[in-house]
Amino acid sequence: MRYRDSGVDIDKANEATRAIARLVKDTWGPEVLSEIGHFGGLFSLPGGCDEPVLVSSMDGVGTKLIVARMVGRYDTIGQDLVNHCVNDILVQGARPLFFLDYIAAGALEPAMVASVVAGLARACRENGCALIGGETAEMPGLYSGEDFDLAGAIVGIVDRKDVIDGSRIVAGDVVFALPSNGLHTNGYSLARRVVFDAMGLDANVRVEELGGSVADELLRVHRSYLKPVREIADRLRIKGLAHITGGGVLENLPRILPDGCGARIRRDACPAPPIFALLMREGEIAEGEMYRVFNMGMGMLVVVSPDDASRVPAKAAGLDVHRVGEIVPGQGVTLA
Amino acid sequence: MRYRDSGVDIDKANEATRAIARLVKDTWGPEVLSEIGHFGGLFSLPGGCDEPVLVSSMDGVGTKLIVARMVGRYDTIGQDLVNHCVNDILVQGARPLFFLDYIAAGALEPAMVASVVAGLARACRENGCALIGGETAEMPGLYSGEDFDLAGAIVGIVDRKDVIDGSRIVAGDVVFALPSNGLHTNGYSLARRVVFDAMGLDANVRVEELGGSVADELLRVHRSYLKPVREIADRLRIKGLAHITGGGVLENLPRILPDGCGARIRRDACPAPPIFALLMREGEIAEGEMYRVFNMGMGMLVVVSPDDASRVPAKAAGLDVHRVGEIVPGQGVTLA
Repeated sequence: MRYRDSGVDIDKANEATRAIARLVKDTWGPEVLSEIGHFGGLFSLPGGCDEPVLVSSMDGVGTKLIVARMVGRYDTIGQDLVNHCVNDILVQGARPLFFLDYIAAGALEPAMVASVVAGLARACRENGCALIGGETAEMPGLYSGEDFDLAGAIVGIVDRKDVIDGSRIVAGDVVFALPSNGLHTNGYSLARRVVFDAMGLDANVRVEELGGSVADELLRVHRSYLKPVREIADRLRIKGLAHITGGGVLENLPRILPDGCGARIRRDACPAPPIFALLMREGEIAEGEMYRVFNMGMGMLVVVSPDDASRVPAKAAGLDVHRVGEIVPGQGVTLA
Repeated sequence: MRYRDSGVDIDKANEATRAIARLVKDTWGPEVLSEIGHFGGLFSLPGGCDEPVLVSSMDGVGTKLIVARMVGRYDTIGQDLVNHCVNDILVQGARPLFFLDYIAAGALEPAMVASVVAGLARACRENGCALIGGETAEMPGLYSGEDFDLAGAIVGIVDRKDVIDGSRIVAGDVVFALPSNGLHTNGYSLARRVVFDAMGLDANVRVEELGGSVADELLRVHRSYLKPVREIADRLRIKGLAHITGGGVLENLPRILPDGCGARIRRDACPAPPIFALLMREGEIAEGEMYRVFNMGMGMLVVVSPDDASRVPAKAAGLDVHRVGEIVPGQGVTLA
């Protein structure tokens, strides 16, 4: 018996590794000390922080993967994952240093792996982040057929004095939203059920209301808010940031609010992409449920003091910035 | 339609989160600045390094998971994962700082998740590593039935002058082995095929030759070599370390050898646990293949100069240390 007989092909794994080595190295700056093939990735810590704090996060892409697989389009889910992770550490004020990925499949398909990694590498370059390591695991018996999963971990840095944690938020502060471009990476189990089961649509069919195919809409790349948030942070002191992921505005904004603080958010203040109206109507989903599952057009919320509100630009890194609400005494988010 | 109808239960996910919060917090020292519920984990970088280098690694547990699932024993695979990752950054001289986990399943079972996280937390405590974050993803449609996957990322630190990279290894250097206690986390696709398919054994059956049940043997916890390697490093300057994972001694040792250096390893110098003889015999596997897939009793190889060889202790942190070979001119590993 040989290892290959049991479904694991080390040579094919090595082929996949070679194909992606160049893409990965393009994301490396001088801080990256290691070469591919070592056991761990080495990253020389940048100076310039008085009290460096590492901020890290691990995430997956969720069932957005299923949509990618339906249409065999694997080049954008890596961007979704990196941008999602960049946003998750950005909310605490961190800039990304490096990223590690995990790709698991029943059988490794080098072209698919290369496509996924190309997306990871593109987003890493765009966010100034080194793709420093990863694991590509072939697991027959655990993943069947074309099944695979993708996860990633990011590590960033922030000076302790610059950590953003929402603790100084008070009633009267103002909430701005940076727009999402669609579902980003959350609510896909429900969205797929509406679009594919209830509506019976084919992934490749064009939907006039969406201005493109179902797959185009559902695979739109999760936005990174690194550049617009930096642009805002250059002008004023941001008090709190909330990345709107699973749980929506209703669950994510309260995570950063101090005790005794709630928020009042105007639903119509930030235009939502048409996919949300379509899902709500066709899925007969209650509006409260929509706001608990989807970002509803608000990808990142930014809390600033009333004095700073006028310094928030109308556009940041090309995105419209919308004033959507206020911090109020109480708790939780009230939709107005 | 509600989100729960699509198979995702946010309340159940929150229940799982609460159950594990206490286990996780037990791994936190004063460096951990964040509370569970924030978006990212915050870790205050320790001082004491002139030129701090972060060493990171991402890994999974592979199809050892399938064995865990067969017997419903989920409390040790977390230890496997953490110890594996600790070893992967240890080979470059790093000590662990923090760990992030990724658990994905078709349906979240809070008791199972708590069991996995208990193992992660136990190993993190044992290795002085904070379990700082993680993602628990419920993905109906991507994972079916009781399927799940587990991956993790570790970040450690080493002063640049203390990085171990094998570059100063020369012919004449001496190779020592720290013993494995079994398969650790590699070769499970082949091992399962031999034990369950070729031999037709039940996971719970006792096998005299192994001194216990099949499941006991296959779920034995991957050893962390942090303590024994530290004990050796306190006495002498280690030139190279190789963690023996997938690819075995034949592929892992060459990864750290400079051009022009090979190694000669004596097969009988480090006693191998009986599982390896059983797999080779019952699977009719060629010996070369065995050494390319399994660790064959050598979990970690340590390369030292001939002058330092006599300073290597006979036991380190309770493990026997075996002199198993030498670095020789040439390339690759020759088994003697």
